[in-house]
Amino acid sequence: MAEALTSEQILEAAQRVLRRFGPAKATVVDVARALGVSHGSVYRHFPSKLALRDAVLRRWLEHAHAPVTLAARAGGPAPARLRNWLATLFDTKRHKACDDPELFATYSALVAGTSGVIADHVAEMIAQIAGILRDGIEAGEFTPVADVELTARAVLDATTRFHNPVFATRWTQDGIDKAFDATCDLVLKGLSS
Amino acid sequence: MAEALTSEQILEAAQRVLRRFGPAKATVVDVARALGVSHGSVYRHFPSKLALRDAVLRRWLEHAHAPVTLAARAGGPAPARLRNWLATLFDTKRHKACDDPELFATYSALVAGTSGVIADHVAEMIAQIAGILRDGIEAGEFTPVADVELTARAVLDATTRFHNPVFATRWTQDGIDKAFDATCDLVLKGLSS
Repeated sequence: MAEALTSEQILEAAQRVLRRFGPAKATVVDVARALGVSHGSVYRHFPSKLALRDAVLRRWLEHAHAPVTLAARAGGPAPARLRNWLATLFDTKRHKACDDPELFATYSALVAGTSGVIADHVAEMIAQIAGILRDGIEAGEFTPVADVELTARAVLDATTRFHNPVFATRWTQDGIDKAFDATCDLVLKGLSS
Repeated sequence: MAEALTSEQILEAAQRVLRRFGPAKATVVDVARALGVSHGSVYRHFPSKLALRDAVLRRWLEHAHAPVTLAARAGGPAPARLRNWLATLFDTKRHKACDDPELFATYSALVAGTSGVIADHVAEMIAQIAGILRDGIEAGEFTPVADVELTARAVLDATTRFHNPVFATRWTQDGIDKAFDATCDLVLKGLSS
């Protein structure tokens, strides 16, 4: 079995172990035991517990963020694309938080113990927004700005309330969709030409 | 001493006790002991531990927010007033968080245990922003909006990153002022006529 062991199998097992024991208690030995292999077999794929945790988090973020990445690549006018991108980000996060709160809490706790993975993820989100902004500026739909990356970060910051997991408990509150729309209106008017 | 005991003395003592023992462990008996009075004397002013905690939090928020309230009442063009209001809110919170992180953490923990006080505080902040928006709309500096309160809430939401205590650890990061300015630019352009 050890020979045929894939990274993907390890990452799936690690997610199950993390959910069961929590990020503070889960060990590489627990993951190896869940797979019926030696911990050496796990270490051949991931050199440390931190490397394994980072890989689990990166995989989860990529899966979770897939619909958002698709939204970034959609066609059509940039203002509608940006609004759809922000709505998809909010919906995706909200569903993750509501459909499986236990797993969402596990990952929110994991995030606290890693920094590089989240920094990369934030950079990727800013790049997706910046891409939409550039298209919109080129098409005359958005006002040209001195620093597209800085403005993209401002768009992400201005909508923090609707994607940062620290606000997850409020995503089911009455009026949250109205609040989201109002913030999007403000941001999109702030970008418009 | 019990006869001369004022609510203000109790609130000051309660703040010291909260800082020392933390919100989870501090009791009304600890506050009474710090003042050298019976806990009955404290209960004459505040009928429950919760009432005392709420009063401590309300007092702290009022003190902390005083410069922001002043900024709301300043004269001049509404866009400059709103930017100044947001900057004052950010500066005030940042100073509170950096100058006395222990007390700031104590109050952030207190906030988690109360809801009415924070709801009132948020309503007051929205009212201050709405007041500036109304002046700006009347003067033709801001675009008229269908629902001024909703837009005021969107302004507060869009700047969450720069006033919500959950982000306090990032307020000393490099580039935070640039990020704040970029978000304000976006918001103000979103409001402008």
